Amino acid sequence: MEAKRIAVIVGSLRKESFNRKIANNLIKLAPQDLELEISQLEMYNQDLDENPLQSWVEFRKAIKSFDGVIFVTPEYNRSIPGVLKNAIDVGSRPYGQSAWDKKPAAVISVSPGATGAFGANHHLRQCLVFLNMPVMQQPEAYIGDASKLFSENGDIAKESTRDFVKKFVTAFSEWVNHFGETEEFEPGHMTKTEEKKPELRM
Amino acid sequence: MEAKRIAVIVGSLRKESFNRKIANNLIKLAPQDLELEISQLEMYNQDLDENPLQSWVEFRKAIKSFDGVIFVTPEYNRSIPGVLKNAIDVGSRPYGQSAWDKKPAAVISVSPGATGAFGANHHLRQCLVFLNMPVMQQPEAYIGDASKLFSENGDIAKESTRDFVKKFVTAFSEWVNHFGETEEFEPGHMTKTEEKKPELRM
Repeated sequence: MEAKRIAVIVGSLRKESFNRKIANNLIKLAPQDLELEISQLEMYNQDLDENPLQSWVEFRKAIKSFDGVIFVTPEYNRSIPGVLKNAIDVGSRPYGQSAWDKKPAAVISVSPGATGAFGANHHLRQCLVFLNMPVMQQPEAYIGDASKLFSENGDIAKESTRDFVKKFVTAFSEWVNHFGETEEFEPGHMTKTEEKKPELRM
Repeated sequence: MEAKRIAVIVGSLRKESFNRKIANNLIKLAPQDLELEISQLEMYNQDLDENPLQSWVEFRKAIKSFDGVIFVTPEYNRSIPGVLKNAIDVGSRPYGQSAWDKKPAAVISVSPGATGAFGANHHLRQCLVFLNMPVMQQPEAYIGDASKLFSENGDIAKESTRDFVKKFVTAFSEWVNHFGETEEFEPGHMTKTEEKKPELRM
């Protein structure tokens, strides 16, 4: 069986982002049947749907090529960062051609506080409902105390957390394998009724 | 009594945005003791906190100068747009200097669908809890069927909706007046304990 390719979307642009570190560790700790790659992005404006930025075109194309997506998110103001939400919005458009459709997904939230960005984690899950991404339910991952987790080289120094992240990404491997190979993209649940069509035209 | 100045944040960059139209109508329908102005924005990156983009500096300064904020939001993927969330994130930083702190606020959500962007409306309210913005609870505003509301010049053609928007912005005038004049900015609930400080450092 060929390895599944997994996009890792990091909701922070900060160079020393804890979320990016968790993402890097996910990559290191992934089982051999998953290949993880980190993606990144620019602001969505529906006016540009017919003449999109090259960065959007590439982002959408990249996402479509993956077999699954792991979102690694901090919490900004009790929700996901604008940067991440924008990536989601860009990937979801234009109408009927969402790059996210049917991709199996997982969510890890990471914060220096005790609550492990729970608010962001579940806001994101609400978006994934609309996006028709089957989300791994367990294990849930709310990684708190992030400022104390990493060694100087960026590895997870705390053994229990390293074990947990390994368990998480291994479970995700099983999750992804419930679903078939990535097929030629075809719009899924988005039926083209007038009722639904304008949902994002605001 | 001097008129209160209200920032109107529109969560869409689209020129023909229904949300922008609602915002324009808010301005037209506001009682005389409110002055409404529309604001706009760029992507947040904490690495730039110490050397912020000029557009951020101006945005934060502008927000601080207002007496209240009305958020007008579409729903993208069952949440607020990345563009709007980014404006919120930019305004909230750097730590301890949030421009939103204590500003009385209101939320109107607008969509072409039947649910009136309910999902976005309440995601936004969760952010406003953290931001310590007292939010007007009633009337709630979930404006659906937005593609049928406007006349060619952009006014709200439907009388019941026009009346509702007028009632909404009038209630907001009362709401704002529960709170004092805008004082010199002082960080409010954000006490500088190590516990809380790194909350957004991700």
